[in-house]
Amino acid sequence: MRPSGRTPEALRPVSIETGIAKHAEGSCLIRIGNTEVLCAASVEGRVPPFMRNQGLGWVTAEYGMLPRATHTRGDREAARGKQSGRTQEIQRLIGRSLRAVTDRKAMGEMTVTLDCDVINADAGTRCAAITGAWVALHLAFQHCVRTNIMSAIPLRDHVAAVSCGVANGEAILDLDYAEDSTAEADANFVLTGSGNLVEVQATAEGAPFSEAQFLAMLDMARDGVAALVLKQREAVGG
Amino acid sequence: MRPSGRTPEALRPVSIETGIAKHAEGSCLIRIGNTEVLCAASVEGRVPPFMRNQGLGWVTAEYGMLPRATHTRGDREAARGKQSGRTQEIQRLIGRSLRAVTDRKAMGEMTVTLDCDVINADAGTRCAAITGAWVALHLAFQHCVRTNIMSAIPLRDHVAAVSCGVANGEAILDLDYAEDSTAEADANFVLTGSGNLVEVQATAEGAPFSEAQFLAMLDMARDGVAALVLKQREAVGG
Amino acid sequence: MRPSGRTPEALRPVSIETGIAKHAEGSCLIRIGNTEVLCAASVEGRVPPFMRNQGLGWVTAEYGMLPRATHTRGDREAARGKQSGRTQEIQRLIGRSLRAVTDRKAMGEMTVTLDCDVINADAGTRCAAITGAWVALHLAFQHCVRTNIMSAIPLRDHVAAVSCGVANGEAILDLDYAEDSTAEADANFVLTGSGNLVEVQATAEGAPFSEAQFLAMLDMARDGVAALVLKQREAVGG
Amino acid sequence: MRPSGRTPEALRPVSIETGIAKHAEGSCLIRIGNTEVLCAASVEGRVPPFMRNQGLGWVTAEYGMLPRATHTRGDREAARGKQSGRTQEIQRLIGRSLRAVTDRKAMGEMTVTLDCDVINADAGTRCAAITGAWVALHLAFQHCVRTNIMSAIPLRDHVAAVSCGVANGEAILDLDYAEDSTAEADANFVLTGSGNLVEVQATAEGAPFSEAQFLAMLDMARDGVAALVLKQREAVGG
Amino acid sequence: MRPSGRTPEALRPVSIETGIAKHAEGSCLIRIGNTEVLCAASVEGRVPPFMRNQGLGWVTAEYGMLPRATHTRGDREAARGKQSGRTQEIQRLIGRSLRAVTDRKAMGEMTVTLDCDVINADAGTRCAAITGAWVALHLAFQHCVRTNIMSAIPLRDHVAAVSCGVANGEAILDLDYAEDSTAEADANFVLTGSGNLVEVQATAEGAPFSEAQFLAMLDMARDGVAALVLKQREAVGG
Amino acid sequence: MRPSGRTPEALRPVSIETGIAKHAEGSCLIRIGNTEVLCAASVEGRVPPFMRNQGLGWVTAEYGMLPRATHTRGDREAARGKQSGRTQEIQRLIGRSLRAVTDRKAMGEMTVTLDCDVINADAGTRCAAITGAWVALHLAFQHCVRTNIMSAIPLRDHVAAVSCGVANGEAILDLDYAEDSTAEADANFVLTGSGNLVEVQATAEGAPFSEAQFLAMLDMARDGVAALVLKQREAVGG
Repeated sequence: MRPSGRTPEALRPVSIETGIAKHAEGSCLIRIGNTEVLCAASVEGRVPPFMRNQGLGWVTAEYGMLPRATHTRGDREAARGKQSGRTQEIQRLIGRSLRAVTDRKAMGEMTVTLDCDVINADAGTRCAAITGAWVALHLAFQHCVRTNIMSAIPLRDHVAAVSCGVANGEAILDLDYAEDSTAEADANFVLTGSGNLVEVQATAEGAPFSEAQFLAMLDMARDGVAALVLKQREAVGG
Repeated sequence: MRPSGRTPEALRPVSIETGIAKHAEGSCLIRIGNTEVLCAASVEGRVPPFMRNQGLGWVTAEYGMLPRATHTRGDREAARGKQSGRTQEIQRLIGRSLRAVTDRKAMGEMTVTLDCDVINADAGTRCAAITGAWVALHLAFQHCVRTNIMSAIPLRDHVAAVSCGVANGEAILDLDYAEDSTAEADANFVLTGSGNLVEVQATAEGAPFSEAQFLAMLDMARDGVAALVLKQREAVGG
Repeated sequence: MRPSGRTPEALRPVSIETGIAKHAEGSCLIRIGNTEVLCAASVEGRVPPFMRNQGLGWVTAEYGMLPRATHTRGDREAARGKQSGRTQEIQRLIGRSLRAVTDRKAMGEMTVTLDCDVINADAGTRCAAITGAWVALHLAFQHCVRTNIMSAIPLRDHVAAVSCGVANGEAILDLDYAEDSTAEADANFVLTGSGNLVEVQATAEGAPFSEAQFLAMLDMARDGVAALVLKQREAVGG
Repeated sequence: MRPSGRTPEALRPVSIETGIAKHAEGSCLIRIGNTEVLCAASVEGRVPPFMRNQGLGWVTAEYGMLPRATHTRGDREAARGKQSGRTQEIQRLIGRSLRAVTDRKAMGEMTVTLDCDVINADAGTRCAAITGAWVALHLAFQHCVRTNIMSAIPLRDHVAAVSCGVANGEAILDLDYAEDSTAEADANFVLTGSGNLVEVQATAEGAPFSEAQFLAMLDMARDGVAALVLKQREAVGG
Repeated sequence: MRPSGRTPEALRPVSIETGIAKHAEGSCLIRIGNTEVLCAASVEGRVPPFMRNQGLGWVTAEYGMLPRATHTRGDREAARGKQSGRTQEIQRLIGRSLRAVTDRKAMGEMTVTLDCDVINADAGTRCAAITGAWVALHLAFQHCVRTNIMSAIPLRDHVAAVSCGVANGEAILDLDYAEDSTAEADANFVLTGSGNLVEVQATAEGAPFSEAQFLAMLDMARDGVAALVLKQREAVGG
Repeated sequence: MRPSGRTPEALRPVSIETGIAKHAEGSCLIRIGNTEVLCAASVEGRVPPFMRNQGLGWVTAEYGMLPRATHTRGDREAARGKQSGRTQEIQRLIGRSLRAVTDRKAMGEMTVTLDCDVINADAGTRCAAITGAWVALHLAFQHCVRTNIMSAIPLRDHVAAVSCGVANGEAILDLDYAEDSTAEADANFVLTGSGNLVEVQATAEGAPFSEAQFLAMLDMARDGVAALVLKQREAVGG
């Protein structure tokens, strides 16, 4: 039995509210259980220097956590003067995941920056950020189509992410904080709407895990992502 | 006529929603027009080194703005590696304002940190932060009383803040972004519930201003703060 | 009675010695009691990037304190690797104050940087810096006129600053260190030669202060600034 | 056909030379094709503050690349003043991988730091670093046993890593630079000597990849790691 | 003929004014030609951590240059966020030079920090700083003797420094800026009052120089330092 | 008798192995006793901004030490976020020394960066770095000649360096760590193949030293450098 009473393959309740960041071209607040992440997409009419003159767009992400998103207050990264390795690792993951389903040629030389800021954290923030960022990105592209900057939405597919873990030797889906801090293994799966893999990250927290356990997690992740994709579809009005 | 159609002495609509930061001992989301600031109070059972062994508590604040709280996306301070002078100036102002009405002796050697994070900005964010932070602080002290950490709420008075300006030679209250960017003078007044002054900051943006204009702003600020104090009272259940 | 034996409205002895920084286009050492600030103006024939192609000049300031300007040695900001929030707040104040009386259109696209470095500190360093920086700026503009870079000195008025405070419930002018560290309120007034306000900053150090106390400080500041303007006039040969 | 003429499942030539860092308790230079990483283990008789009084040891890693380890010279991270996100991500991976096979209770409160510095880079540096760091760690533990600091070597198993990729739709093992820069997917597998998984990281570089491709990579990785474990065994004299 | 009309072996006019930094235990303003350096000594009753419990004192120095000490304004190091390599090199040289003549055992576990800040620069600032810092240090030790912190002044000898160079193939003493920027070789000699060597730094600016040229510089430096030592003696009242 | 049994004027065994950094235009591993420094030269077809349009080339150096090059592990400078003053001082010395023998006009507007990374340290690392960097630079210039970027090798002479010291009052050549940490004086001499001086740095570690001691060190350094120049000649195939 899981601390929350969920079955091993049960996702927490998911909701996606759009239009939260009033100035952003696209935005949403995604809630997965008690985890809440504000995702805002900003469109800019040029690409960073290293991407210039290639005829391709750029999609990138930044991630942050409000100091009191967590049980005990964390240091503010701006005050400490640098982003932690964890923050940088997560924001690079979000950017890569979105680029994997974006038709950057169709975008033209434009940049979309996704700001993913965690308002409340109860584990799974990077997965929530990827799932919500796709919605904000889609909304921003809708804005570009409406304003005739683009002729069609340059996204080839959905992308969404979910965490899995091994607890008491058994695979479980979508860990909350209580589970995350005691799991024997921890994995994040980023998948497309059509079921292909964009990113797999699995880590033994204590003892190494077996291939069978890994494959059980991968199966659960498929179902979890399918459910998240339905929520994304509703949020973007599709 | 003001861009928003308000009269010179009219405040924007104000609302204060509590309990937003689920882990914080006290929190609220304050909305003043389109400006939205999330204020979260974190209680810690010790004071910073420079305050030790004096039998006094400490109240401090940190301030941040989500990158897309503004019309065009701003740099993330954590990514740039330092807080701007403006950020530091604001967070010191919030801390000073709250300490001016706190009975730090009655607190004992505890620290409350107020995190004020701007979700949406339409001018007046530092004033909204002070007004909301008082609510978060009061709620955190309520928590301390409920859990027998303190015997009474160690606040001597309300404190709230409002901006004023001079536009076309005339004093106006509670500037929004359109006004803030064209005002001839810009002032922030931090006052207590009983009408005393905690902080006055007035700056000529172009030509210097007259004493008469300054005094007109001060009068308007009194009324604005009185209205904000009523909203604070409702929010903390008093 | 004040620690120094001064009456409440008495300024400390003031002197302004010009030509201290041999390479600078304008410079002075201003002494107000035991506070000594070296102000040097550097003229450059271009404006910073954010000001380009607007046909306006730029006046900015940097502020520093020698490590042993104070009773106990302070950290060298260059060694710590960053300027404190206080330093940044002060240098922005100096810059704003000088820009308020400068005809930036008449300057053309030139920059003057005012370096204000505190040699000895006995409170009131930011006010002394503003007062001295105006002299250095005027001298630098004289240099520009002499060398035919400008046709007239692009200053509309004097600007000078003085601190006030509340001690034992009574307003006092131009606090020294002994007073500054115990005052109940602390204020800085930046005024023009013609008596208008450029900046007002008043802060309760303990309990909030009353409007009557605030107005008494403002009255004293007027007289103090008038006296400083006379000293400025002598220093620039007017 | 691969650029190097290797078959899809062929590892590059591997050699491990020990004793390179003369002052280190354990060290080796691992060569995998043209990739060369110097791994040095430093033993210290205490743990970092966050690990104290738990009766457990600590194993951690730092990673660096000499500026001219690459085709074109890279910036020196010490000169730029910070480690890149990539560097931090890699050194955390190395540390986690080694801790997964270390009996930290048997270590006692000691720290071993593994410095992994890339002398020449031809892709696969993080995998080479993990594989070489295990050797350096084993040698350092041998030193601790010889000097009676430990009674037995506190390692439960080997750990080694290898990269895989998808090129032209087909899985390949141990990518060199030419392959790494064009692969459709890129994965790193960290496995134990007994075949369990410690870490899996797979990333789509362009289009998402299929589960079948992923499983083909995992199979190749098993064989690759088995070969590396034999080389480790020789190097530590086992 | 030198630009200033001096003979090859002529020092510029030297003056040392004491008591400039009002709060410092010892201070002086040393002028060598148009070079002016303010040297302030701060005494502290403990040593830095790495020196503790050895029964020895510590003497250290920090060096800075006001931004407009030079012909064109230089960046403020505090604003850039780091001290240049040149600054660090100079302050380590000043510290080493003073420690070479200090009886650190007789000092006891106390620290003296010498702040050397260049007000006006016309070459030779590091040499002026060493020469002036010795005076500030001596005055600070006098203060310690007067206040019974020390029983005698713990200095074994004078130490002073002078620059030399090679211009048009000929050795010259005490270069000013015009000479310094064109010299073929540049050397700094730090010598004691009794004529021993504390530090020699000689650098070819263009072509390498000969041993004969080097020895000619060393001879001139001896005479220059002897003259500086007389000035030091007057300044400390001896 | 020296700890190593060497006579006062004996150099440690020297070897120079070329071609270590596979991607570099020139490289070598220089070993002097147990000191090992990897020197890699990188050629770039442009000069830094401050050197542009002068028709001159640029030669510069960076220096680093692997954390476990020393008896006890040192902090990694990239992790600490800045290079120490010592590192900066050394890399500037290496750059100056090489530029003194380079015909920068003949180079054209190209840059060569010498990376000198210490693999094992047993004193004398900066001298080894200079001596090895000259070899790497020569090899890189050979590469430029072979690829028709330059018509001849733009080096006017060899440059090499050796340390000397005073131990028990007597001059000694090429100190190892045991000697370096106890020497009364420490000097580095950088000389050309033809015997001229490029840089002299001599420092009293305790008591000041005499001119006679200094001249004895200089004599030994001449012979030491002559031996190093022979090794350089062999290494570059000359």
